[in-house]
Amino acid sequence: MVQYDEQGYKDLGWAKIDTGRPARTGTAEAVYAAGKTPEQVVAALRALRESHPGRVAIATRCDAACVEQIEAAFGDEALCDSGVAAIGGFPEPEAGPLAVVCAGTSDLPVAREAELVAKANGLDAHLVADVGVAGLHRLLDRLPRLREAVCVIVVAGMDGALPSVVAGLVSAPVVAVPTSVGYGAAFGGLAPLLTMLNSCSPGVTVVNIDNGFGAAIAATRIMSVKAER
Amino acid sequence: MVQYDEQGYKDLGWAKIDTGRPARTGTAEAVYAAGKTPEQVVAALRALRESHPGRVAIATRCDAACVEQIEAAFGDEALCDSGVAAIGGFPEPEAGPLAVVCAGTSDLPVAREAELVAKANGLDAHLVADVGVAGLHRLLDRLPRLREAVCVIVVAGMDGALPSVVAGLVSAPVVAVPTSVGYGAAFGGLAPLLTMLNSCSPGVTVVNIDNGFGAAIAATRIMSVKAER
Amino acid sequence: MVQYDEQGYKDLGWAKIDTGRPARTGTAEAVYAAGKTPEQVVAALRALRESHPGRVAIATRCDAACVEQIEAAFGDEALCDSGVAAIGGFPEPEAGPLAVVCAGTSDLPVAREAELVAKANGLDAHLVADVGVAGLHRLLDRLPRLREAVCVIVVAGMDGALPSVVAGLVSAPVVAVPTSVGYGAAFGGLAPLLTMLNSCSPGVTVVNIDNGFGAAIAATRIMSVKAER
Amino acid sequence: MVQYDEQGYKDLGWAKIDTGRPARTGTAEAVYAAGKTPEQVVAALRALRESHPGRVAIATRCDAACVEQIEAAFGDEALCDSGVAAIGGFPEPEAGPLAVVCAGTSDLPVAREAELVAKANGLDAHLVADVGVAGLHRLLDRLPRLREAVCVIVVAGMDGALPSVVAGLVSAPVVAVPTSVGYGAAFGGLAPLLTMLNSCSPGVTVVNIDNGFGAAIAATRIMSVKAER
Amino acid sequence: MVQYDEQGYKDLGWAKIDTGRPARTGTAEAVYAAGKTPEQVVAALRALRESHPGRVAIATRCDAACVEQIEAAFGDEALCDSGVAAIGGFPEPEAGPLAVVCAGTSDLPVAREAELVAKANGLDAHLVADVGVAGLHRLLDRLPRLREAVCVIVVAGMDGALPSVVAGLVSAPVVAVPTSVGYGAAFGGLAPLLTMLNSCSPGVTVVNIDNGFGAAIAATRIMSVKAER
Amino acid sequence: MVQYDEQGYKDLGWAKIDTGRPARTGTAEAVYAAGKTPEQVVAALRALRESHPGRVAIATRCDAACVEQIEAAFGDEALCDSGVAAIGGFPEPEAGPLAVVCAGTSDLPVAREAELVAKANGLDAHLVADVGVAGLHRLLDRLPRLREAVCVIVVAGMDGALPSVVAGLVSAPVVAVPTSVGYGAAFGGLAPLLTMLNSCSPGVTVVNIDNGFGAAIAATRIMSVKAER
Amino acid sequence: MVQYDEQGYKDLGWAKIDTGRPARTGTAEAVYAAGKTPEQVVAALRALRESHPGRVAIATRCDAACVEQIEAAFGDEALCDSGVAAIGGFPEPEAGPLAVVCAGTSDLPVAREAELVAKANGLDAHLVADVGVAGLHRLLDRLPRLREAVCVIVVAGMDGALPSVVAGLVSAPVVAVPTSVGYGAAFGGLAPLLTMLNSCSPGVTVVNIDNGFGAAIAATRIMSVKAER
Amino acid sequence: MVQYDEQGYKDLGWAKIDTGRPARTGTAEAVYAAGKTPEQVVAALRALRESHPGRVAIATRCDAACVEQIEAAFGDEALCDSGVAAIGGFPEPEAGPLAVVCAGTSDLPVAREAELVAKANGLDAHLVADVGVAGLHRLLDRLPRLREAVCVIVVAGMDGALPSVVAGLVSAPVVAVPTSVGYGAAFGGLAPLLTMLNSCSPGVTVVNIDNGFGAAIAATRIMSVKAER
Repeated sequence: MVQYDEQGYKDLGWAKIDTGRPARTGTAEAVYAAGKTPEQVVAALRALRESHPGRVAIATRCDAACVEQIEAAFGDEALCDSGVAAIGGFPEPEAGPLAVVCAGTSDLPVAREAELVAKANGLDAHLVADVGVAGLHRLLDRLPRLREAVCVIVVAGMDGALPSVVAGLVSAPVVAVPTSVGYGAAFGGLAPLLTMLNSCSPGVTVVNIDNGFGAAIAATRIMSVKAER
Repeated sequence: MVQYDEQGYKDLGWAKIDTGRPARTGTAEAVYAAGKTPEQVVAALRALRESHPGRVAIATRCDAACVEQIEAAFGDEALCDSGVAAIGGFPEPEAGPLAVVCAGTSDLPVAREAELVAKANGLDAHLVADVGVAGLHRLLDRLPRLREAVCVIVVAGMDGALPSVVAGLVSAPVVAVPTSVGYGAAFGGLAPLLTMLNSCSPGVTVVNIDNGFGAAIAATRIMSVKAER
Repeated sequence: MVQYDEQGYKDLGWAKIDTGRPARTGTAEAVYAAGKTPEQVVAALRALRESHPGRVAIATRCDAACVEQIEAAFGDEALCDSGVAAIGGFPEPEAGPLAVVCAGTSDLPVAREAELVAKANGLDAHLVADVGVAGLHRLLDRLPRLREAVCVIVVAGMDGALPSVVAGLVSAPVVAVPTSVGYGAAFGGLAPLLTMLNSCSPGVTVVNIDNGFGAAIAATRIMSVKAER
Repeated sequence: MVQYDEQGYKDLGWAKIDTGRPARTGTAEAVYAAGKTPEQVVAALRALRESHPGRVAIATRCDAACVEQIEAAFGDEALCDSGVAAIGGFPEPEAGPLAVVCAGTSDLPVAREAELVAKANGLDAHLVADVGVAGLHRLLDRLPRLREAVCVIVVAGMDGALPSVVAGLVSAPVVAVPTSVGYGAAFGGLAPLLTMLNSCSPGVTVVNIDNGFGAAIAATRIMSVKAER
Repeated sequence: MVQYDEQGYKDLGWAKIDTGRPARTGTAEAVYAAGKTPEQVVAALRALRESHPGRVAIATRCDAACVEQIEAAFGDEALCDSGVAAIGGFPEPEAGPLAVVCAGTSDLPVAREAELVAKANGLDAHLVADVGVAGLHRLLDRLPRLREAVCVIVVAGMDGALPSVVAGLVSAPVVAVPTSVGYGAAFGGLAPLLTMLNSCSPGVTVVNIDNGFGAAIAATRIMSVKAER
Repeated sequence: MVQYDEQGYKDLGWAKIDTGRPARTGTAEAVYAAGKTPEQVVAALRALRESHPGRVAIATRCDAACVEQIEAAFGDEALCDSGVAAIGGFPEPEAGPLAVVCAGTSDLPVAREAELVAKANGLDAHLVADVGVAGLHRLLDRLPRLREAVCVIVVAGMDGALPSVVAGLVSAPVVAVPTSVGYGAAFGGLAPLLTMLNSCSPGVTVVNIDNGFGAAIAATRIMSVKAER
Repeated sequence: MVQYDEQGYKDLGWAKIDTGRPARTGTAEAVYAAGKTPEQVVAALRALRESHPGRVAIATRCDAACVEQIEAAFGDEALCDSGVAAIGGFPEPEAGPLAVVCAGTSDLPVAREAELVAKANGLDAHLVADVGVAGLHRLLDRLPRLREAVCVIVVAGMDGALPSVVAGLVSAPVVAVPTSVGYGAAFGGLAPLLTMLNSCSPGVTVVNIDNGFGAAIAATRIMSVKAER
Repeated sequence: MVQYDEQGYKDLGWAKIDTGRPARTGTAEAVYAAGKTPEQVVAALRALRESHPGRVAIATRCDAACVEQIEAAFGDEALCDSGVAAIGGFPEPEAGPLAVVCAGTSDLPVAREAELVAKANGLDAHLVADVGVAGLHRLLDRLPRLREAVCVIVVAGMDGALPSVVAGLVSAPVVAVPTSVGYGAAFGGLAPLLTMLNSCSPGVTVVNIDNGFGAAIAATRIMSVKAER
């Protein structure tokens, strides 16, 4: 026999805000704006703010119309960039440093999503842009800095080769994010996704295509590890 | 200008043992036995043992013929199970606990690969078998134990639903391993791989199908995190 | 030798309304509006109304232009929502209850298609929204209600894990509907489709991606079962 | 707040027999023999027999070596056919009739898996073999019988066209089972799977390729429906 | 040694009109308008008209802008419908009858492309619309007419089951055209394409998705067969 | 209302021999040996011989064990080659010539399947081997002969380019057969299948990968065309 | 031990212009405009011009808005065509001739991208348009000219058969470029990509779908070969 | 009008040896042994030897049985390794150096196929083994040697990242060969194939999975380039 007695949720009818999530998982629910109306996104953000006043409320994948309504609703509290809306100012970083590395300029929006979500969750995140393997010295030049990082998020489209190279050079956990940058046989990010899953450098783990958000949450979980026995 | 000056390697002609890897990445090279002759596997294991006498040398994906030659070559030093050959006794665990959870009995070989490689790398790993979501109470019954874990590896084939459920219940990093267990539209593990990449529980990261080894190395990297700034 | 003598159809030239379908299969033909002009949709709905005056005539996948013409043509008789147009008021429910469960808010339009088509076919359908497995207690809280249902439709995108969990908790038939909600490796709904086909909970059956309509028709067939021998 | 208090399970260490499943879902756990040793299969069958003495214990996907050990272990109690092992004699049928229709002779093993599992679960199942659409009169000749069935399982490989035709002729629920029969662009059953998911006859639901077992469990759930309100 | 001495072509620089094609293959080149400017399409049609004054010049896949320029350029000579532009009036039919059968109303544009191109090539083509297998009697009612046809083109999306049924009922060659009608697991026409390639009725041949043009040219080749030895 | 009254079938229980097929479609049923026991194949061939004593009975995809039993059962009446078993001597050719062209030597077994089935159906078939496009003069050298053919079957693996070239040089119907010859990105015949479906030479129609049988039946249907109106 | 000391780069923060690339690889970095703002493209082009005043600066995949800003920024220096922007006049050709062959008129934009990038890199490039294999004489007519070429780029969509034919006729290296021209089973260029990878003419190498740019850079590398030992 | 008058071929009936290929393309035909009988392979090799006594005759993909017959037939003339059979001693190298680089030890057979075929065609080929990107210093250590090469073949499985890194460091043409080394999401070589097609280092061209032969022929064509105008 087993008893399962968890904390509650706030029922909006069309949505059930999982108010117990921070206690269970360490991070609050975020609003996935795609497929929701701007009104639904604003309402869900409000509910999150009310449930966890001390936490930044986050929505991802907000389009222009959605951003407009969020800014109208939350005013200066809202920071909107790269599809992310963060309500409530970023906290002082509590853990880090986290390096968010991206291969090319076109990968920047995904990398920025990861950076913003990480900062909202109290991580000391730094962006290292445009260090793809076609010009290896750009990456190697940043090596000392990468080796200081406690965790590294690597964002890359096209061949997705960067995480394999980075993971061969550092000992920190490497979370790889394939992007849909590319064309033709990139097949919307399938190519770098497969590259990263088959990395010859062991220890690379992978999230969904363009999922900067997921990488940041994974980094937040990783940063909270206390490894002593 | 950039200088890149790394530690060396041992050149066997047909192979170059990367002796600098532990210093760079925290774990030693492992021998991927598939596509190599048993002689090559034994020779590579010897080279690893000589380079790093204090570390367990590991080969994965060893078939029966390969295991036979390894046991002949290394005798009692060799522990062979689930395709893994570990040469040199396991060290005292230095970090943990790591929970290795698997959904079904048929997933056990992959879970065992993860467990053995984790132990060889100094982790305190425990196996939790057969707790698939079709009978949720089996999992929930283990919840207190899962919540003690510093990192959780979740191994599942077929629908691959288990990591989503686990990641909604714990705050530790969750490394998901899809397996090739299943048939038909499982497409050799593609189904659980996609499930895990699309997990509705944020923070799940994924390794290749049947890649228990990679999950264990990722856990080793994660366990070495010192998250203070 | 075999004789096949079936009821007729109404020939519109460009379409042949299958007027014998209710007698053969229990439900009337519905108009699949995608790829048809609004004029064709209205004409087909009229023909259905004339053939079966006592039944609700249904079109699915109506876009805004199509809805406009339907409302102009049928006035108050038309109920249009989530791409469904139902002409003629809903009948009193004759069978049920049917639970239509969906994992996330973005899955609501598909769930609503299922709910409306089920109601048009005389089922007592209830929507249970936003009970995805990332916060299991939201689902478990609804368990008594789910167990009352004679049939359960489960709608989910992304990882599509919800039907496996539900089917492990209830004894009613579970019809799973994958949705195209998600991005990247969701591949337009392929990910939850494969998840559901590989469910570790036996007895889950699956319809096409976003096919709320088909799930409702399947539920109508199921509800008409008289299981005695 | 929610309480989840379910019946237990029997812990074999490497497996946890879900003894509460019949109470929750109406059917007992079955042993998926692929990827398990014959010893594990026999042990799991024994545990199932002990937990539910009044129920037939079932294993599927048993190869020759596995069947041999099962027959050695259970003697006359065991009925082994088409990869299915059923321990304990079939009960008197309690519900039906269930028609199991298959398109070609090569689809027979999958159809037989469905038939045997259905019988073990108390259904009155009948096999209708080799009625593919290339010779429609063979099917139409069986139409009166098909229309008596309370539920119809349709098994087909290659083009997978049979369920669409059957579902247009009967009002019972149609559960479609694609098979891996075929070659080339059948892609191991992908072709009939897609055909069935896209059936132009509404109400067809689909299970995994070659999953006769799952179709039978779905039929068992469907047959237990009491549709009154 | 071999000599290859073929008839010429008309060089427009950016295009080389294959003026020898009718003599070699029996049908003239047609203009594939997708990816060409309207000016290019008009110029190519002019070149075809000049090279073969006695033949209808054809362009396919013309969008609205393209159609407008074609009608401006050719006036009454142009017949534009379903993306096809036919310049020069249709000839008296020289062979037939050809039946162009389509499963649903949404398949009509592809069927119409086939019908128009067949007529332009001198075939006596007739359209039989909306006879999908969900209501078999609609098809069987047309059987006498189908059996008179010398060749049958069958156009179907979604499950693509119609060609298998038709080919089991007639002895004429059956050319199957899958369409992109459908959604979700239809994968843009992949589902009916695979269905048709795996037809259990032997003798079905298949052209590309939505390729009504190709089916009509195949029918033209087939109709020119003189089968005596 | 419609009446469908077709000729019968012979019921073997596990199979229903469609004895009406020759009258309906012009060719007799053939036995697809894959997935059947040798005993089933022999029994089905016997039933075919009894139903149509004047026709050659055919089985395809016979492996060595199956061939052995067929030869034991039918003695000199059986001709077995390339997986085809033809029972009863080939008739005098009634129509032709049919050219069966193959690109490479490794494609020969599929081409031979087509040739044998065509001969069994009364066609005057000739094999033209190893004329792939890498050495175009080998093909052009056969051009006069190809142009005499009433129908051309083109068999090719790897790039599958040959049908496009042939169809640009002849006016006869071209039936293309992709083969599974090749490796890597040939993906079991997917590459030549897609090539042929996308042929830039209009009028090419395609059958399943390795389906020489289907191509021969299509040729038989084509050869029976009387194209006058 | 190894020393890696490479030339530098220009750091724009969001981009790191790899100024050492010409010295290392022979060609300068180019700007991939997709996913970048027009401002970013202009700034990157300026940085390239400053770093390598003697070289043409190139951007590819520029849309109309991007072209407008480039022309505003660089005036007469800019040549914009087929998505390519080339800043600085083309140099006198230093190597060649390079033949850029394309199969159809719709492939011209990709072929033109290759031609322009080749010219910017000092190659003597010539375009041979519309010589697809459906009318072989158009290609054979150009054979003398093709045989003069030092390298041949072959651009083709749909069946992608042209490179196999060309590579069987010339001894120069053949770089094949599949295009996304086509529809249905062309799957966005997958069909010609697979065709080219499986070419039966050995020595064909392949670049990404629509990647005229990459083919031109490959040709530049090839043209710089001095093959003596 | 066009005349096409090419050198002949030797007709073996089941094969047509293209004796004109060296004159047209610079390299002789090779025997693809897969799908051929050992007798056919030996006969084809003999024909090649007779047609071009001064050239090495090559067969690829020879299995053990085939190798045995080749060695029996040609004695000391035959060199058999990694599936390649080369008849007639290697010529003195006429061009080079060619570097054949491979990422891992399991890629060696494919790299060796490339090396042997290159040597048979008169290239000065050198193998550089086991320099995958997980330990970058192993590759960088070989950089001076790689930069001397006139052409570089890069062989890699799993993530296939090596060609991108190499092409960023050298100016020679880089021909990339994906291998089927790997498991799970490597999908038989699809993963490295896509990586290489999407290389962020421009100028990489790609051949089929495991196609060492094709890479060597491409290198032979490249080495014969005289780039002056």
